[in-house]
Amino acid sequence: MSFSPLIRQLIDALRILPGVGQKSAQRMALQLLERDRSGGLRLAQALAAAMEGVGYCKRCRTLSEDELCQQCADPQRDDSLLCVVQSPMDVFAVEQTGFRGRYFVLKGHLSPLDGLGPEAIGIPALLERVEAGGFSEVILATNPTVEGEATAHYIAQMLVPNGLAVSRIAHGVPLGGELELVDGGTLAHAMAGRKPISL
Amino acid sequence: MSFSPLIRQLIDALRILPGVGQKSAQRMALQLLERDRSGGLRLAQALAAAMEGVGYCKRCRTLSEDELCQQCADPQRDDSLLCVVQSPMDVFAVEQTGFRGRYFVLKGHLSPLDGLGPEAIGIPALLERVEAGGFSEVILATNPTVEGEATAHYIAQMLVPNGLAVSRIAHGVPLGGELELVDGGTLAHAMAGRKPISL
Repeated sequence: MSFSPLIRQLIDALRILPGVGQKSAQRMALQLLERDRSGGLRLAQALAAAMEGVGYCKRCRTLSEDELCQQCADPQRDDSLLCVVQSPMDVFAVEQTGFRGRYFVLKGHLSPLDGLGPEAIGIPALLERVEAGGFSEVILATNPTVEGEATAHYIAQMLVPNGLAVSRIAHGVPLGGELELVDGGTLAHAMAGRKPISL
Repeated sequence: MSFSPLIRQLIDALRILPGVGQKSAQRMALQLLERDRSGGLRLAQALAAAMEGVGYCKRCRTLSEDELCQQCADPQRDDSLLCVVQSPMDVFAVEQTGFRGRYFVLKGHLSPLDGLGPEAIGIPALLERVEAGGFSEVILATNPTVEGEATAHYIAQMLVPNGLAVSRIAHGVPLGGELELVDGGTLAHAMAGRKPISL
Protein backbone atom coordinates (compact mmCIF):
# COMPACT_ATOMS: atom_id res chain seq x y z
CA MET A 1 0.00 0.00 0.00
CA SER A 2 -0.48 2.45 -1.45
CA PHE A 3 -2.49 5.51 -0.69
CA SER A 4 -3.54 7.25 -3.87
CA PRO A 5 -1.17 10.00 -5.07
CA LEU A 6 -3.21 12.96 -3.78
CA ILE A 7 -3.48 11.41 -0.33
CA ARG A 8 0.21 10.55 -0.34
CA GLN A 9 1.11 14.13 -1.24
CA LEU A 10 -1.11 15.42 1.54
CA ILE A 11 0.50 13.09 4.08
CA ASP A 12 3.98 14.18 2.98
CA ALA A 13 3.00 17.83 3.15
CA LEU A 14 1.53 17.45 6.66
CA ARG A 15 4.83 16.09 7.91
CA ILE A 16 6.45 19.52 7.69
CA LEU A 17 4.37 20.51 10.73
CA PRO A 18 6.42 20.37 13.93
CA GLY A 19 5.75 17.25 15.97
CA VAL A 20 3.92 15.45 13.15
CA GLY A 21 5.39 12.12 12.03
CA GLN A 22 4.23 9.63 9.43
CA LYS A 23 1.54 8.08 11.60
CA SER A 24 0.01 11.36 12.78
CA ALA A 25 0.11 12.73 9.24
CA GLN A 26 -1.82 9.69 7.98
CA ARG A 27 -4.38 10.07 10.71
CA MET A 28 -4.76 13.79 10.00
CA ALA A 29 -5.12 13.29 6.24
CA LEU A 30 -7.68 10.50 6.50
CA GLN A 31 -9.64 12.20 9.23
CA LEU A 32 -9.93 15.40 7.21
CA LEU A 33 -10.93 13.44 4.10
CA GLU A 34 -13.46 11.31 5.93
CA ARG A 35 -14.98 13.78 8.35
CA ASP A 36 -14.17 17.40 7.66
CA ARG A 37 -13.48 18.37 4.07
CA SER A 38 -14.79 21.88 4.53
CA GLY A 39 -12.48 22.30 7.52
CA GLY A 40 -9.62 21.03 5.37
CA LEU A 41 -10.41 23.59 2.68
CA ARG A 42 -10.63 26.35 5.29
CA LEU A 43 -7.22 25.29 6.57
CA ALA A 44 -5.82 25.37 3.02
CA GLN A 45 -7.10 28.91 2.57
CA ALA A 46 -5.87 30.08 5.97
CA LEU A 47 -2.43 28.62 5.24
CA ALA A 48 -2.16 30.25 1.83
CA ALA A 49 -3.40 33.60 3.15
CA ALA A 50 -0.98 33.57 6.09
CA MET A 51 2.06 32.34 4.15
CA GLU A 52 1.54 35.02 1.50
CA GLY A 53 0.14 37.81 3.63
CA VAL A 54 2.06 37.84 6.90
CA GLY A 55 5.24 39.89 7.03
CA TYR A 56 7.11 41.53 9.87
CA CYS A 57 6.23 44.55 11.98
CA LYS A 58 8.61 47.27 10.85
CA ARG A 59 9.16 48.47 14.39
CA CYS A 60 9.45 45.39 16.63
CA ARG A 61 9.94 42.76 13.91
CA THR A 62 7.36 40.34 15.16
CA LEU A 63 5.14 38.55 12.64
CA SER A 64 2.31 40.76 11.43
CA GLU A 65 0.46 41.46 8.22
CA ASP A 66 0.21 45.15 9.10
CA GLU A 67 3.08 47.61 9.03
CA LEU A 68 2.85 47.89 12.80
CA CYS A 69 1.82 44.93 14.93
CA GLN A 70 -0.91 45.30 17.53
CA GLN A 71 1.58 45.79 20.32
CA CYS A 72 3.45 48.55 18.50
CA ALA A 73 0.28 50.25 17.27
CA ASP A 74 -1.30 50.32 20.73
CA PRO A 75 -1.00 53.87 22.18
CA GLN A 76 -1.88 52.68 25.69
CA ARG A 77 1.37 50.83 26.34
CA ASP A 78 4.29 51.83 28.52
CA ASP A 79 6.82 53.42 26.16
CA SER A 80 9.58 53.35 28.76
CA LEU A 81 9.99 49.55 28.84
CA LEU A 82 11.46 47.49 26.03
CA CYS A 83 11.41 43.69 26.22
CA VAL A 84 13.84 41.88 23.90
CA VAL A 85 12.85 38.33 22.91
CA GLN A 86 14.09 35.71 20.48
CA SER A 87 10.93 34.89 18.58
CA PRO A 88 7.33 35.99 17.94
CA MET A 89 6.13 33.08 20.09
CA ASP A 90 8.00 34.64 23.03
CA VAL A 91 6.05 37.88 22.60
CA PHE A 92 2.92 35.83 23.16
CA ALA A 93 4.45 34.20 26.26
CA VAL A 94 5.56 37.52 27.77
CA GLU A 95 2.19 39.12 27.02
CA GLN A 96 0.58 36.48 29.19
CA THR A 97 2.59 37.70 32.18
CA GLY A 98 0.76 41.00 32.00
CA PHE A 99 3.74 42.95 30.61
CA ARG A 100 2.44 45.93 28.66
CA GLY A 101 5.57 47.66 27.41
CA ARG A 102 7.12 47.48 23.96
CA TYR A 103 8.94 44.61 22.28
CA PHE A 104 11.83 43.90 20.02
CA VAL A 105 12.01 40.48 18.39
CA LEU A 106 15.43 39.11 17.44
CA LYS A 107 15.77 36.49 14.74
CA GLY A 108 16.83 33.75 17.15
CA HIS A 109 20.07 33.80 19.09
CA LEU A 110 23.73 34.41 18.31
CA SER A 111 25.28 31.27 16.88
CA PRO A 112 28.70 31.95 15.39
CA LEU A 113 29.16 28.32 14.38
CA ASP A 114 26.06 28.56 12.18
CA GLY A 115 27.22 31.90 10.82
CA LEU A 116 24.61 33.81 12.83
CA GLY A 117 26.33 36.94 14.07
CA PRO A 118 24.84 40.16 15.49
CA GLU A 119 23.69 41.43 12.07
CA ALA A 120 21.97 38.16 11.19
CA ILE A 121 19.79 38.21 14.29
CA GLY A 122 19.04 41.94 14.08
CA ILE A 123 21.11 43.45 16.89
CA PRO A 124 22.03 46.61 14.92
CA ALA A 125 18.32 47.28 14.41
CA LEU A 126 17.76 46.74 18.13
CA LEU A 127 20.47 49.28 18.97
CA GLU A 128 18.90 51.80 16.57
CA ARG A 129 15.52 51.20 18.16
CA VAL A 130 16.98 51.74 21.64
CA GLU A 131 18.77 54.93 20.60
CA ALA A 132 15.64 56.36 19.08
CA GLY A 133 13.36 55.08 21.79
CA GLY A 134 13.82 56.91 25.08
CA PHE A 135 13.39 53.71 27.10
CA SER A 136 14.15 53.77 30.80
CA GLU A 137 14.79 50.02 30.92
CA VAL A 138 15.59 47.27 28.47
CA ILE A 139 14.56 43.79 29.67
CA LEU A 140 16.47 40.94 28.05
CA ALA A 141 14.10 37.98 27.83
CA THR A 142 16.07 35.67 25.55
CA ASN A 143 15.86 31.95 26.32
CA PRO A 144 17.57 30.60 29.46
CA THR A 145 19.90 28.50 27.30
CA VAL A 146 23.63 28.87 26.73
CA GLU A 147 22.96 30.64 23.43
CA GLY A 148 20.21 32.82 24.89
CA GLU A 149 22.45 33.83 27.78
CA ALA A 150 25.31 34.64 25.43
CA THR A 151 22.98 36.74 23.29
CA ALA A 152 21.71 38.61 26.35
CA HIS A 153 25.26 39.15 27.54
CA TYR A 154 26.32 40.50 24.14
CA ILE A 155 23.40 42.93 24.02
CA ALA A 156 24.05 44.06 27.60
CA GLN A 157 27.65 44.83 26.65
CA MET A 158 26.41 47.12 23.91
CA LEU A 159 23.82 48.93 25.99
CA VAL A 160 25.10 49.22 29.57
CA PRO A 161 28.04 51.52 28.68
CA ASN A 162 25.50 54.02 27.33
CA GLY A 163 24.06 54.41 30.81
CA LEU A 164 20.89 52.50 30.03
CA ALA A 165 19.24 50.31 32.68
CA VAL A 166 19.42 46.78 31.28
CA SER A 167 17.92 43.81 33.10
CA ARG A 168 17.75 40.07 32.57
CA ILE A 169 14.70 37.97 33.54
CA ALA A 170 15.29 36.06 36.78
CA HIS A 171 16.53 32.48 36.87
CA GLY A 172 15.30 30.20 39.62
CA VAL A 173 13.07 27.28 40.37
CA PRO A 174 9.87 27.19 38.31
CA LEU A 175 6.54 27.15 40.17
CA GLY A 176 5.01 23.72 40.74
CA GLY A 177 6.80 20.41 40.72
CA GLU A 178 9.40 19.20 43.19
CA LEU A 179 12.77 20.56 44.15
CA GLU A 180 14.50 17.22 43.65
CA LEU A 181 13.52 17.30 39.97
CA VAL A 182 15.08 20.73 39.36
CA ASP A 183 18.51 20.55 37.70
CA GLY A 184 21.58 21.64 39.62
CA GLY A 185 22.32 24.73 37.54
CA THR A 186 18.83 26.10 38.04
CA LEU A 187 18.91 25.39 41.75
CA ALA A 188 22.31 27.08 42.08
CA HIS A 189 20.83 30.18 40.39
CA ALA A 190 17.85 30.01 42.75
CA MET A 191 20.13 29.82 45.79
CA ALA A 192 22.37 32.64 44.63
CA GLY A 193 19.36 34.80 43.78
CA ARG A 194 17.55 34.20 47.09
CA LYS A 195 15.53 37.07 48.51
CA PRO A 196 14.92 38.14 52.11
CA ILE A 197 11.40 37.46 53.34
CA SER A 198 9.76 40.39 55.07
CA LEU A 199 6.69 39.58 57.11
CA MET B 1 -2.30 39.42 22.92
CA SER B 2 -3.04 39.46 20.11
CA PHE B 3 -1.75 37.63 17.11
CA SER B 4 -2.63 39.46 13.92
CA PRO B 5 -5.89 38.32 12.27
CA LEU B 6 -4.29 36.15 9.57
CA ILE B 7 -2.17 34.32 12.14
CA ARG B 8 -5.17 33.90 14.43
CA GLN B 9 -7.20 32.42 11.59
CA LEU B 10 -4.39 30.03 10.74
CA ILE B 11 -4.11 28.90 14.39
CA ASP B 12 -7.87 28.34 14.57
CA ALA B 13 -7.84 26.41 11.30
CA LEU B 14 -4.94 24.19 12.42
CA ARG B 15 -6.95 23.15 15.48
CA ILE B 16 -9.26 21.03 13.35
CA LEU B 17 -6.38 18.57 12.92
CA PRO B 18 -6.74 15.60 15.27
CA GLY B 19 -4.48 15.86 18.32
CA VAL B 20 -3.70 19.54 17.78
CA GLY B 21 -4.65 21.91 20.60
CA GLN B 22 -4.16 25.65 21.01
CA LYS B 23 -0.50 25.43 21.97
CA SER B 24 0.53 23.05 19.17
CA ALA B 25 -1.43 25.09 16.65
CA GLN B 26 0.44 28.25 17.70
CA ARG B 27 3.75 26.47 17.41
CA MET B 28 2.86 25.09 13.99
CA ALA B 29 1.65 28.44 12.67
CA LEU B 30 4.65 30.41 13.88
CA GLN B 31 7.15 27.77 12.81
CA LEU B 32 5.72 27.68 9.29
CA LEU B 33 5.72 31.47 9.11
CA GLU B 34 9.24 31.80 10.46
CA ARG B 35 10.99 28.88 8.85
CA ASP B 36 9.11 27.24 6.04
CA ARG B 37 6.70 29.38 4.07
CA SER B 38 7.17 27.41 0.89
CA GLY B 39 6.36 24.23 2.83
CA GLY B 40 3.28 25.96 4.19
CA LEU B 41 2.17 26.88 0.67
CA ARG B 42 2.80 23.33 -0.53
CA LEU B 43 0.67 22.07 2.36
CA ALA B 44 -2.10 24.51 1.41
CA GLN B 45 -2.06 23.23 -2.17
CA ALA B 46 -1.91 19.57 -1.15
CA LEU B 47 -4.85 20.11 1.21
CA ALA B 48 -6.97 21.85 -1.39
CA ALA B 49 -6.13 19.25 -4.05
CA ALA B 50 -6.95 16.33 -1.76
CA MET B 51 -10.13 17.82 -0.26
CA GLU B 52 -11.47 18.56 -3.72
CA GLY B 53 -10.05 15.66 -5.69
CA VAL B 54 -10.28 12.58 -3.49
CA GLY B 55 -13.45 10.53 -3.70
CA TYR B 56 -14.26 6.91 -2.99
CA CYS B 57 -13.31 3.77 -4.89
CA LYS B 58 -16.53 2.58 -6.53
CA ARG B 59 -15.76 -1.05 -5.74
CA CYS B 60 -14.27 -1.20 -2.24
CA ARG B 61 -15.25 2.31 -1.06
CA THR B 62 -11.87 3.29 0.28
CA LEU B 63 -10.62 6.83 -0.32
CA SER B 64 -9.22 7.28 -3.81
CA GLU B 65 -9.20 9.90 -6.53
CA ASP B 66 -9.49 7.21 -9.21
CA GLU B 67 -12.61 5.20 -9.96
CA LEU B 68 -10.85 2.09 -8.70
CA CYS B 69 -8.30 2.29 -5.90
CA GLN B 70 -4.89 0.68 -6.30
CA GLN B 71 -5.95 -2.44 -4.43
CA CYS B 72 -9.05 -2.96 -6.59
CA ALA B 73 -7.24 -2.15 -9.83
CA ASP B 74 -4.38 -4.56 -9.12
CA PRO B 75 -4.87 -7.74 -11.22
CA GLN B 76 -2.28 -9.66 -9.18
CA ARG B 77 -4.37 -9.97 -6.04
CA ASP B 78 -6.17 -12.97 -4.64
CA ASP B 79 -9.78 -12.60 -5.77
CA SER B 80 -11.01 -15.33 -3.45
CA LEU B 81 -10.43 -13.37 -0.21
CA LEU B 82 -12.43 -10.36 0.91
CA CYS B 83 -11.38 -8.39 3.99
CA VAL B 84 -14.04 -6.15 5.53
CA VAL B 85 -12.74 -3.15 7.51
CA GLN B 86 -14.23 -0.08 9.12
CA SER B 87 -12.14 2.68 7.59
CA PRO B 88 -9.57 3.47 4.87
CA MET B 89 -6.88 3.65 7.59
CA ASP B 90 -7.60 0.01 8.38
CA VAL B 91 -6.90 -0.96 4.77
CA PHE B 92 -3.44 0.48 5.27
CA ALA B 93 -3.01 -1.45 8.54
CA VAL B 94 -4.11 -4.77 7.02
CA GLU B 95 -1.92 -4.23 3.96
CA GLN B 96 1.06 -4.10 6.27
CA THR B 97 0.35 -7.64 7.43
CA GLY B 98 1.04 -8.89 3.91
CA PHE B 99 -2.63 -9.60 3.08
CA ARG B 100 -3.10 -9.37 -0.68
CA GLY B 101 -6.77 -10.11 -1.22
CA ARG B 102 -9.57 -7.65 -1.84
CA TYR B 103 -11.17 -5.16 0.54
CA PHE B 104 -14.48 -3.67 1.41
CA VAL B 105 -14.51 -0.53 3.54
CA LEU B 106 -17.55 0.13 5.72
CA LYS B 107 -18.38 3.65 6.83
CA GLY B 108 -17.56 3.00 10.47
CA HIS B 109 -19.55 0.61 12.65
CA LEU B 110 -23.20 0.00 13.45
CA SER B 111 -24.37 2.51 16.02
CA PRO B 112 -28.17 2.48 16.35
CA LEU B 113 -28.12 5.21 19.01
CA ASP B 114 -26.45 7.56 16.53
CA GLY B 115 -28.85 6.51 13.80
CA LEU B 116 -26.20 4.49 12.00
CA GLY B 117 -27.94 1.34 10.78
CA PRO B 118 -26.79 -1.21 8.18
CA GLU B 119 -27.60 1.10 5.24
CA ALA B 120 -25.69 4.03 6.70
CA ILE B 121 -22.46 2.08 7.02
CA GLY B 122 -22.83 0.36 3.64
CA ILE B 123 -23.75 -3.21 4.52
CA PRO B 124 -26.20 -3.61 1.58
CA ALA B 125 -23.37 -2.68 -0.80
CA LEU B 126 -21.13 -5.21 0.94
CA LEU B 127 -23.74 -7.94 0.46
CA GLU B 128 -24.03 -7.04 -3.23
CA ARG B 129 -20.29 -7.14 -3.56
CA VAL B 130 -20.13 -10.55 -1.89
CA GLU B 131 -22.93 -11.93 -4.07
CA ALA B 132 -21.22 -10.74 -7.22
CA GLY B 133 -17.76 -11.64 -6.07
CA GLY B 134 -17.16 -15.37 -5.95
CA PHE B 135 -15.13 -15.12 -2.76
CA SER B 136 -14.19 -18.29 -0.93
CA GLU B 137 -13.78 -16.48 2.38
CA VAL B 138 -14.87 -13.20 3.92
CA ILE B 139 -12.61 -11.97 6.72
CA LEU B 140 -14.27 -9.58 9.16
CA ALA B 141 -11.59 -7.18 10.39
CA THR B 142 -13.73 -4.58 12.14
CA ASN B 143 -12.30 -3.07 15.32
CA PRO B 144 -12.07 -5.24 18.45
CA THR B 145 -14.52 -2.94 20.25
CA VAL B 146 -18.07 -3.61 21.34
CA GLU B 147 -19.37 -1.80 18.25
CA GLY B 148 -16.90 -3.48 15.93
CA GLU B 149 -17.82 -6.91 17.32
CA ALA B 150 -21.52 -6.17 16.93
CA THR B 151 -20.95 -5.07 13.34
CA ALA B 152 -18.95 -8.22 12.58
CA HIS B 153 -21.66 -10.34 14.20
CA TYR B 154 -24.38 -8.64 12.16
CA ILE B 155 -22.50 -9.17 8.90
CA ALA B 156 -21.78 -12.83 9.77
CA GLN B 157 -25.50 -13.36 10.35
CA MET B 158 -26.19 -12.14 6.83
CA LEU B 159 -23.46 -14.17 5.13
CA VAL B 160 -23.08 -17.49 6.96
CA PRO B 161 -26.58 -18.80 6.05
CA ASN B 162 -25.59 -18.45 2.37
CA GLY B 163 -22.93 -21.10 2.91
CA LEU B 164 -20.04 -18.66 2.71
CA ALA B 165 -16.91 -19.13 4.84
CA VAL B 166 -16.83 -16.12 7.15
CA SER B 167 -14.01 -15.54 9.63
CA ARG B 168 -13.17 -13.02 12.32
CA ILE B 169 -9.61 -11.87 13.06
CA ALA B 170 -8.24 -13.53 16.21
CA HIS B 171 -8.41 -11.93 19.63
CA GLY B 172 -5.56 -12.53 22.04
CA VAL B 173 -2.59 -10.93 23.74
CA PRO B 174 -0.71 -8.45 21.53
CA LEU B 175 2.99 -9.09 20.89
CA GLY B 176 5.40 -7.28 23.21
CA GLY B 177 4.64 -5.88 26.62
CA GLU B 178 3.78 -7.78 29.75
CA LEU B 179 0.95 -10.13 30.53
CA GLU B 180 0.05 -8.31 33.75
CA LEU B 181 -0.74 -5.21 31.69
CA VAL B 182 -3.19 -7.00 29.41
CA ASP B 183 -6.83 -6.43 30.33
CA GLY B 184 -8.93 -9.30 31.61
CA GLY B 185 -11.24 -9.55 28.61
CA THR B 186 -8.33 -9.85 26.20
CA LEU B 187 -6.60 -12.43 28.37
CA ALA B 188 -9.81 -14.44 28.65
CA HIS B 189 -10.01 -14.46 24.83
CA ALA B 190 -6.35 -15.51 24.65
CA MET B 191 -6.96 -18.39 27.09
CA ALA B 192 -10.09 -19.58 25.31
CA GLY B 193 -8.38 -19.37 21.95
CA ARG B 194 -5.23 -21.20 23.02
CA LYS B 195 -3.57 -23.44 20.46
CA PRO B 196 -1.73 -26.72 20.84
CA ILE B 197 2.01 -26.47 20.39
CA SER B 198 3.46 -29.05 18.04
CA LEU B 199 7.22 -29.52 18.20
